[in-house]
Amino acid sequence: MNTNPSEFSSNRSTALLTDKYELTMLQAALADGSAERPSTFEVFSRRLPNERRYGVVAGTARVLKAIRDFVFTEEQLADLDFLDDRTLEYLRNYRFTGQVDGYREGEIYFPQSPLLTVRGTFAECVILETVILSIMNADSAVASAAARMVTAADGRPIIEMGSRRTHEYSAVTASRAAYLAGFSTTSNLEAAYRYGIPASGTSAHAWTLLHINDDGTPNEAAAFKAQVESLGVDTTLLVDTYDITQGVATAIEVAGPDLGGVRIDSGDLGVLARKVRKQLDDLNAHNTKIVVSSDLDEFAIAGLRGEPVDVFGVGTSVVTGSGAPTAGLVYKIVEVAGHPVAKRSRNKESYGGGKKAVRTHRKSGTAIEEIVYPFNAEAPDTGKLDTLSLTIPLMRDGEIVPGLPTLEDSRAYLAKQLVSLPWEGLALSRDEPVLHTRFVGFPPVA
Amino acid sequence: MNTNPSEFSSNRSTALLTDKYELTMLQAALADGSAERPSTFEVFSRRLPNERRYGVVAGTARVLKAIRDFVFTEEQLADLDFLDDRTLEYLRNYRFTGQVDGYREGEIYFPQSPLLTVRGTFAECVILETVILSIMNADSAVASAAARMVTAADGRPIIEMGSRRTHEYSAVTASRAAYLAGFSTTSNLEAAYRYGIPASGTSAHAWTLLHINDDGTPNEAAAFKAQVESLGVDTTLLVDTYDITQGVATAIEVAGPDLGGVRIDSGDLGVLARKVRKQLDDLNAHNTKIVVSSDLDEFAIAGLRGEPVDVFGVGTSVVTGSGAPTAGLVYKIVEVAGHPVAKRSRNKESYGGGKKAVRTHRKSGTAIEEIVYPFNAEAPDTGKLDTLSLTIPLMRDGEIVPGLPTLEDSRAYLAKQLVSLPWEGLALSRDEPVLHTRFVGFPPVA
Repeated sequence: MNTNPSEFSSNRSTALLTDKYELTMLQAALADGSAERPSTFEVFSRRLPNERRYGVVAGTARVLKAIRDFVFTEEQLADLDFLDDRTLEYLRNYRFTGQVDGYREGEIYFPQSPLLTVRGTFAECVILETVILSIMNADSAVASAAARMVTAADGRPIIEMGSRRTHEYSAVTASRAAYLAGFSTTSNLEAAYRYGIPASGTSAHAWTLLHINDDGTPNEAAAFKAQVESLGVDTTLLVDTYDITQGVATAIEVAGPDLGGVRIDSGDLGVLARKVRKQLDDLNAHNTKIVVSSDLDEFAIAGLRGEPVDVFGVGTSVVTGSGAPTAGLVYKIVEVAGHPVAKRSRNKESYGGGKKAVRTHRKSGTAIEEIVYPFNAEAPDTGKLDTLSLTIPLMRDGEIVPGLPTLEDSRAYLAKQLVSLPWEGLALSRDEPVLHTRFVGFPPVA
Repeated sequence: MNTNPSEFSSNRSTALLTDKYELTMLQAALADGSAERPSTFEVFSRRLPNERRYGVVAGTARVLKAIRDFVFTEEQLADLDFLDDRTLEYLRNYRFTGQVDGYREGEIYFPQSPLLTVRGTFAECVILETVILSIMNADSAVASAAARMVTAADGRPIIEMGSRRTHEYSAVTASRAAYLAGFSTTSNLEAAYRYGIPASGTSAHAWTLLHINDDGTPNEAAAFKAQVESLGVDTTLLVDTYDITQGVATAIEVAGPDLGGVRIDSGDLGVLARKVRKQLDDLNAHNTKIVVSSDLDEFAIAGLRGEPVDVFGVGTSVVTGSGAPTAGLVYKIVEVAGHPVAKRSRNKESYGGGKKAVRTHRKSGTAIEEIVYPFNAEAPDTGKLDTLSLTIPLMRDGEIVPGLPTLEDSRAYLAKQLVSLPWEGLALSRDEPVLHTRFVGFPPVA
């Protein structure tokens, strides 16, 4: 496993993963003296995409590293020739020295949940906008989709195998987000290396097609034999390159009834799974698992719940957020020098002021609502209700708070939180957010 | 501009941007002697997403660099403890030494167009699958969506400003793909640094909200004044933080009638653009441009074609491929030791054998069809038709062919090719691919 502290390379600054206007605003702010105003920025969503019932926070740990690595090299500064000297000098010395609080990675969220609160001078906070949002929007989109697939799979393992369907580095962090959400393994070796996620895989059609006789005719048995000899009888053979029934027969003939699994990657997966299960059982291969893949999403997985499928392989849909490739999170200034501020255009209203949140639960453990309250106020009195603090310290004076949850911790945390949702929250159909977010203690913005 | 030869860092190997099964197939192939079989792999699409009428090839130049950088470090090899010693030794010495041919970056394509043909031993070709597809699927998805937006904008410039809505590195390459497709500038500074794309930007609502009086009341004029003083009167002021009409009045009051532009980021953009244009003209600010943004996609842009909008700012929709975040390209083995091979499961049929393609045109310049023919055959006789060779050499014996098109070349090339499409090809509505791909000279696969 990679012990390199930085996200994608040892010498990788994140400082140019930034929109130009952030640096030009910085320049104007340094010039008019507003750069040093104490400011609070907040990451939140206005709505959940595709009328889903909850979202999953992901990317937080990556955001904290990206903030720490947000330092400008001389080579980068040389490229920023549209800035004046004062601004370049500011950037040369830039280190974020402020405070970050927010939801744990793996927390569930709803519209208006204050997912991340960044406090510092305007100057040091405003230039982090793009990199914070890029990471949280990408990772939360994948985790939110993946969590629904995990629910649909109802305990059966899911392999993440979508690397080829998304940007080469997006693939790596999508693996991470899917694992966070409960996927069991990934095909992506960089994700295994970087994050310690268990990797798995079967074989491709190319493997079977490679094995032809001298006259060019197929020799599926040779492909299966070589795979079993090299990888052991516990391997999974891909049986749908030619005829599936023949493929299954050949697989068991070659590997014997202790074959680990067969994969079906095309056709009507439910019908085929039943047919193949019967064939395997008739061949005494009762423990040979059936792995299915081929454009599966949460709905297709749910549709296969009653079929004899042992493992799901999911690609495109999970890495593209299953119809919602971005979480739609925004990073907005909510407080300046102690005053709440908010844009007042229609359709984009938001509450001013820094915020924290708690979630209340019934004695049964079922969540009731989120209560959002002013950042510097006491937590609201929730009586005898079981109350979970959703906002935790993440960064203090520019340093990542020690002892934050690991990826495994966050994965376990999410699994636990999902159980706390009212039952309708786990349904796949479109609806309103399953929990309401209630604001307590905020004066209305004038 | 960055002169670093590698894609995302000086010491960045692409070798683990790979699915595990590629390396286990490699191990089995080394064991049974099939690793050295001469093989041909092909990148193509089975269909165009969302019933679009054409696709745009993007990412080719990035793919070639990724192949060149596909070398394993000792640290990476140490993590691949599931492989046997022979396989690790093969990877330790791995350099791609084969041939790559394909469509130019910026070429338009259709289902079954042979976009990339990779020839070499099975071993050296099979392990490149994931990284090739990741890059081409991501970049082509963005370029294909962006090209439609450029058509819709009908000559008016489009700023790419979607970095915050996608993975932090996907943002950089999305900028590149959008620029390739005809976007005029990007907000992303890493894209400017890495690829020399012109960067631009306006300002955020946070900038206006930062400027409050001591009692917390808004002071939009102070924000505008500071921006104009720092960035010049040619800057673009964001006028919709509070009341737009007041915002425009304040903007011209502060900056005078030579103000570069105003940006509107919310509301009914068509209605507002007309209203603001009239207000600006009444204030004698005839040259002040109107920039609009706010969830624009190709359809929204087309809907604003009749309005007095000067510049479009596009974010989410372009970086997420406007409903098609992946191009759906596949990498399939098509030839082994001179024999065409193809999977024969239903719904996934493909022609065996390596391929090249030409496109024919009428005297008017309008394209007629693509003709695909066997890789080693003579180009088909197209009589007196103007005929464009679509397949060009990209890599020879593992080296990138010198003199390949630059990003600017590819951008100009695409603009020219789009003009050659039959007129219905540029319509935004769903339909069949506008050109047919005809196969000539292939024996039917048994």
